[in-house]
Amino acid sequence: MRNNDQILDLFENYLAQMQLPEEPELLYNPIIYAMSGGGKRIRPVLLLLACEAFGGDVTDAMPAALAVEMFHNFTLLHDDIMDNAVVRRGKPSVYAKWGSNVAILSGDAMMIEAYKLLRGVPEDKLARILDIFTPMALQVCEGQQYDMDFEKIQKVAVAEYMNMIELKTSVLLAGSAMIGAVIGNASEEDCRKIYRYALELGLAFQLQDDLLDSYGTVEELGKRIGGDILEGKKTCLMLNTMSRATEEDREVLRHTHLDETLSDEEKIQRVKAVYDKYDVPKVINQQIAVRFERALSILDTLDIPTERTEYLRAYAQNLMGRKK
Amino acid sequence: MRNNDQILDLFENYLAQMQLPEEPELLYNPIIYAMSGGGKRIRPVLLLLACEAFGGDVTDAMPAALAVEMFHNFTLLHDDIMDNAVVRRGKPSVYAKWGSNVAILSGDAMMIEAYKLLRGVPEDKLARILDIFTPMALQVCEGQQYDMDFEKIQKVAVAEYMNMIELKTSVLLAGSAMIGAVIGNASEEDCRKIYRYALELGLAFQLQDDLLDSYGTVEELGKRIGGDILEGKKTCLMLNTMSRATEEDREVLRHTHLDETLSDEEKIQRVKAVYDKYDVPKVINQQIAVRFERALSILDTLDIPTERTEYLRAYAQNLMGRKK
Repeated sequence: MRNNDQILDLFENYLAQMQLPEEPELLYNPIIYAMSGGGKRIRPVLLLLACEAFGGDVTDAMPAALAVEMFHNFTLLHDDIMDNAVVRRGKPSVYAKWGSNVAILSGDAMMIEAYKLLRGVPEDKLARILDIFTPMALQVCEGQQYDMDFEKIQKVAVAEYMNMIELKTSVLLAGSAMIGAVIGNASEEDCRKIYRYALELGLAFQLQDDLLDSYGTVEELGKRIGGDILEGKKTCLMLNTMSRATEEDREVLRHTHLDETLSDEEKIQRVKAVYDKYDVPKVINQQIAVRFERALSILDTLDIPTERTEYLRAYAQNLMGRKK
Repeated sequence: MRNNDQILDLFENYLAQMQLPEEPELLYNPIIYAMSGGGKRIRPVLLLLACEAFGGDVTDAMPAALAVEMFHNFTLLHDDIMDNAVVRRGKPSVYAKWGSNVAILSGDAMMIEAYKLLRGVPEDKLARILDIFTPMALQVCEGQQYDMDFEKIQKVAVAEYMNMIELKTSVLLAGSAMIGAVIGNASEEDCRKIYRYALELGLAFQLQDDLLDSYGTVEELGKRIGGDILEGKKTCLMLNTMSRATEEDREVLRHTHLDETLSDEEKIQRVKAVYDKYDVPKVINQQIAVRFERALSILDTLDIPTERTEYLRAYAQNLMGRKK
């Protein structure tokens, strides 16, 4: 079995050998640009780790691993248009570099390329893998739509938010893990379990992402602290506090980011004071811990020797930025 | 065997029973809106006619027929954003009605829905049908990119233009016919032939479309004559004439549509006079006739009794607006 870094190396090698047509340039160059943007490749790595944990050959799983990475990057191309995001991984987004028409069409081609890559899975598993991939892809679209919807409505319940982040980010991780398990010849039950492992992990990761944005260090977050607060974003911190706070405190949460008499620092402090008043960071931390532990404990129930789950465990810790 | 109208009825019935989730509304309502916009359904009808011509059961082919129609409408959603087109089939386009973000994301969901529908083809034919559908879908994206490229460059060769319209419009017709033939259990050779039939027919249709835009009647075209000329569009008339004309005449073709001293009627007359000088309408008409006859003659070579090709023949005549 290979660890995270070895698997990542293999994947990067495979990606580097990907062949795309040279023309039309404005269709295919943005795909190469987007795919070489780096990132942690968390979806293909998880797919490959899951495959190998069950004794599968990662070579068989490479096309599917590239398919989920291609699909993920397709969603980024289109999301960046919708969010008007001009920077992606420290470089201009495809949308910023080539404009929205190119980002739309290259994104479309990437989604179709993902399906083309899926044809490279073992033929006897094709139908089953499509039945994981396609519903997952639709769920990601649903999650993105809910995310955009939530920006426009006043009141979002915590449960609605959890459903949205599950659709928008966790199902892709979960589907990737499940596809890897299928290629690794895992039993139906283990496939469902590994799906659940990745789903819980994805939710823990997303909740932690929200938490770090307000309470992390610049090193942990990789950018300035407090961005979500300054945007007035409906995060799990915001929505959990809204569900517990007095009307007076809710008013503070609704309007602080719009108050032009305050500095950014003052806005961040004022909103965090309300979060703290209701002990919400602690609540979220507990939720993260519960989901993270649940993910790990699912690994214990798989029908394979515990030592085979070592790298899936390390993957979880690595994703959450935790030491072993 | 059923004729075009009977097949169309069956398809519309099947489409009317399509089930989509109710939420998120802004993801799925635009899909229903786009799919109920009517149109001649030329791609699914051809797919079903081809299936039945080879003795297949159209019930088996319905999911694939809906998949190609779904895919076609996905391309329209995204093309309308890129072309800034606010009207589609006499109604506001999805882009105009809901904005570009909704049109992007609903379009994405439609493409994924197309793949979901393809899972409904007979299981033993799934891999083969994906191998027709996916390359076809990529070619359509390539065609759209070339089309956008050509708007921005001065000189486009006639052969480049033919390649573009083949990719952008004919391959989808050809792929649809081939998928129908596969489901109808046609031989490999007949599948290739029916592909060629639809490809030639699609090219004839597209050339005729260009010709009618300048030389048709309002009844034939369904809109005002001369739109392409007023836009300065690089059509087959324009590019063929450019390849034959003197530099002086080429200047007329390049600049007439921009000349603010001329009325629309004068612009149209001036450009058509150049087309006529080089006998280009006649040349295009001959090209249309050659491709149309080639399409029909391919039907004679299929390994099925001639009478089984009756409705494919009628389809071709119908598509080209010709009496039998």
